[in-house]
Amino acid sequence: MIIDRLYEEVEKKGNVCVGLDTALEYIPSTILNNYHSIDDILFYFNKRIIDATIDIVPCYKVQIAFYEAHGLNGMLAYKKTLEYIRNKGSVVVADIKRADISSTAKAYARAHFEGDFESDFITLNPYMGFDSITPYLDYVENKNKGLFILLRTSNDGAKDIQYLDINGNGKVYNYIGDKIKDISYKYMGKCGYSSIGAVVGGTHLEESDEIRNRLGKVFFLIPGYGAQGGKGKDVVSYLKNGNGGIVNSSRGIITSYKKYDDGVEKFDSYARDAVLDMKEDISSETKTI
Amino acid sequence: MIIDRLYEEVEKKGNVCVGLDTALEYIPSTILNNYHSIDDILFYFNKRIIDATIDIVPCYKVQIAFYEAHGLNGMLAYKKTLEYIRNKGSVVVADIKRADISSTAKAYARAHFEGDFESDFITLNPYMGFDSITPYLDYVENKNKGLFILLRTSNDGAKDIQYLDINGNGKVYNYIGDKIKDISYKYMGKCGYSSIGAVVGGTHLEESDEIRNRLGKVFFLIPGYGAQGGKGKDVVSYLKNGNGGIVNSSRGIITSYKKYDDGVEKFDSYARDAVLDMKEDISSETKTI
Repeated sequence: MIIDRLYEEVEKKGNVCVGLDTALEYIPSTILNNYHSIDDILFYFNKRIIDATIDIVPCYKVQIAFYEAHGLNGMLAYKKTLEYIRNKGSVVVADIKRADISSTAKAYARAHFEGDFESDFITLNPYMGFDSITPYLDYVENKNKGLFILLRTSNDGAKDIQYLDINGNGKVYNYIGDKIKDISYKYMGKCGYSSIGAVVGGTHLEESDEIRNRLGKVFFLIPGYGAQGGKGKDVVSYLKNGNGGIVNSSRGIITSYKKYDDGVEKFDSYARDAVLDMKEDISSETKTI
Repeated sequence: MIIDRLYEEVEKKGNVCVGLDTALEYIPSTILNNYHSIDDILFYFNKRIIDATIDIVPCYKVQIAFYEAHGLNGMLAYKKTLEYIRNKGSVVVADIKRADISSTAKAYARAHFEGDFESDFITLNPYMGFDSITPYLDYVENKNKGLFILLRTSNDGAKDIQYLDINGNGKVYNYIGDKIKDISYKYMGKCGYSSIGAVVGGTHLEESDEIRNRLGKVFFLIPGYGAQGGKGKDVVSYLKNGNGGIVNSSRGIITSYKKYDDGVEKFDSYARDAVLDMKEDISSETKTI
């Protein structure tokens, strides 16, 4: 089960997931001047970030939108980035948030669990219902792949639908959480967590204890740290004994160099420093609970 | 406003939207034997379908999953298909069902409204909230682009979340419908419909009148006809005077050749026949209401 590999990586390297939301405006002039095609620019920026952090993070999350935005060349950079991470032995989460049904969902499963765009975990949006999740489960059971299903996202608009009160059943996100829990129990790893995980925003401290308790064996992908306002204290109650979740930061890590005079030369080592600071923030809070 | 162009196309050519869900197993041996790269196989199949139907349909819906499934070569076929439809003067709906927030949503907007993968309309999933829709609105207002937001989908699992009863507010899909309506009024075309449309499944006759009445000026993309079980009588109450919506069929059109002995040679003309039958089915039902 892929979740056992991710769990072990977290045990060894901590919870920080580096988000490669590689927008062009995040890329320093040193890279822009040295490479001329979009795919090289995006890939070589990512490669330096990966090389500088791979020994201290359990995984990378690659947000496909930033590559789709550049058309075919962007998708080539996406492919090269995933391959590089996987070839280096790390775990890659493809943040694709796809949602569709039957034969279309099967096509997405093939797209992101095989071939050019193969990843280890993908994110999925459950709005169309749980028959939109089923087509991926064969890959979870038989091909060492995993899912993170959107449960409660980190944006303000999360309240629009996810927080609606259902007659007699609490909020929509609780209902979805219970469904995710039901599915997750069929795909348990030896580590005590399931390869079916959930995405829970790291920006609303008040519900994190409740969500952790309801979804005991569900591993969490926690976005929202850093640029979106989340702090170590906001995410630790999603964790258990320092494991059970990965905490993603994208801009907070990959653009941290912008604060320094020599940042454009050493953007990768500033990214490493930002990861180390974030690990320290999370582990110091973990110790207090 | 792009909706005026789509409305005019529907006035001239009817409501049938041809869905290019081009799975490899749908492609006849004549094409598989003549072309050897995936991008040529997918594109030349689509081209023949488009050439055989462009004078009798208002638009095409291209389901990106079937192209993503083939990696970079698939995405090349996707690009060529969109360009071919747009260069021929028809309207293309990119069925991408993307959902994400802030800078990520902006990247998706750029990905699908500019550059290699430029389309006229895209489909979006609202689960993350209405701040996940905002980043696309500049393209609607200023760049002649349109949206179809998922409201009530055609699959059985639609009931899992979209049909949940909210305290005092009806079902989730009604709530989302009201939100779509609020946004849509800011982007009205001269034809009386908005460039912000909604996706409503053509498989649940019982709610179609209610949805049409609640969302008076919202144009509908109606999937589920044909292979998913929808018939002309299931979709006509979503229409008004024969306009106000497009009815998508994919497999029912592009694989209709499989029923005939000479199908593999003439798959395109059988697709045309299937479109004509579907137009007749819809227009005969339209006349009865």
